[in-house]
Amino acid sequence: MTAEDTQTAIRLSPMAVPKASDVLATEIRERILSGEFAEGSALPPERELVLQTKMSRTTVREALRILEVQGLVRIKTGRAGGAFVCKPGEDSVADSLELLIRGRQIRLTSVHETREAIEPACARLAAVNRTAGELGVLEKANETIAAAKTLEEFLQANVDWHVGVAIASHNEILTGVMIALSRAIYTTTNNEGFVNDEVRALATRAHRSVTRAIKEKDADAAARRMTRHVHSYAAAALEVDDRVAIAVDQD
Amino acid sequence: MTAEDTQTAIRLSPMAVPKASDVLATEIRERILSGEFAEGSALPPERELVLQTKMSRTTVREALRILEVQGLVRIKTGRAGGAFVCKPGEDSVADSLELLIRGRQIRLTSVHETREAIEPACARLAAVNRTAGELGVLEKANETIAAAKTLEEFLQANVDWHVGVAIASHNEILTGVMIALSRAIYTTTNNEGFVNDEVRALATRAHRSVTRAIKEKDADAAARRMTRHVHSYAAAALEVDDRVAIAVDQD
Repeated sequence: MTAEDTQTAIRLSPMAVPKASDVLATEIRERILSGEFAEGSALPPERELVLQTKMSRTTVREALRILEVQGLVRIKTGRAGGAFVCKPGEDSVADSLELLIRGRQIRLTSVHETREAIEPACARLAAVNRTAGELGVLEKANETIAAAKTLEEFLQANVDWHVGVAIASHNEILTGVMIALSRAIYTTTNNEGFVNDEVRALATRAHRSVTRAIKEKDADAAARRMTRHVHSYAAAALEVDDRVAIAVDQD
Repeated sequence: MTAEDTQTAIRLSPMAVPKASDVLATEIRERILSGEFAEGSALPPERELVLQTKMSRTTVREALRILEVQGLVRIKTGRAGGAFVCKPGEDSVADSLELLIRGRQIRLTSVHETREAIEPACARLAAVNRTAGELGVLEKANETIAAAKTLEEFLQANVDWHVGVAIASHNEILTGVMIALSRAIYTTTNNEGFVNDEVRALATRAHRSVTRAIKEKDADAAARRMTRHVHSYAAAALEVDDRVAIAVDQD
């Protein structure tokens, strides 16, 4: 028996070949995320990228479009156009969470459960971190809520206030999740049978009392009042709502 | 003065022209999200889409790639290849949140704050909703944690347990956020100076006691124990960590 006999036959398995545009997009993405390609700086023009990478024009265009969809470059057309480096923002998290919510007919209770988990934390942090300007946004939303003539005006100002509290928390992750949830919040509460004068009066009072705690930098009171508000609002909304899932409409 | 004199001159403002591939991607996306294009079904072949839409082949390819990046179609090559409809999953939320965390050098405290907000809620829901199989995953992770020889083994089993609790909550939104955070959790706790025998023994004990509450379907105990665990772990990690921001590495 020779050495060759003991060797197993050479075999290759089916292989996944990465697409050229993915290879290029990954390379550029890593260099943006590492900070090597700074925010706001221009990538080389398309024809230059073709020369540098030896890839086809179609591949280069596709890679740039992938990065654009991921919020990592902004493509401007016209003179002074080109692809400019962006840092990914809360918006891309919001977009993907919205796809998840819309595509899956997310259960109403999932939205309420998530709100009950994160909104008290947002209120607690907002009481510590809010700026005067952020407090102003909350007070403005409260005025709009009190003056709202239509259900739509009320719901929009309601969502603005909840997102405003998240922004005032200065926590980028919680803010991204709340922006993502805001359309679902609008939809879960868009119900004439539920949003009557009494519910609006209760919401107005609850928002004012959370806002006051945030103004006075009383973190415990802000969290406690937000917990009570989100919980009772969710319970009341579910009581009059016979939907078990929601479809969130596009504007 | 004639009627014409009182009319203002016709003026046009600069306009943003949507890209053809965005128009096509939006059309297909809406029909996937509405359920008209069912999960798993094949989109028409590229050349067929070109004929139907009167758009160029490049445009059609770009639109399909955009949808692929968003997790709404899967493109298979080879015989029986083509573009197949997917429903967006937790993964796309995780991907975008990971871009946010990596691209922004998210503050360590943001990760800890978010964990303190959502993990007790996950534990509470897991105690109510967990299946026998999901409980088994948690118990398995606990065994791996206790037996872990290296820091990496310990950290991976630790993350598996935390994500396992989220999955057992049966809340798709909270699960998406926890999967997204899992790499950040790994990184924030990847510190030899912190993960010593004492810390590992404490974590093992805490995980077991939360798991027991989930097993016994005691929602209040599960939430209370998870709150204590995440809070003390975060406090201990921050104490030995002089980083203020983290860079999450790609595998």
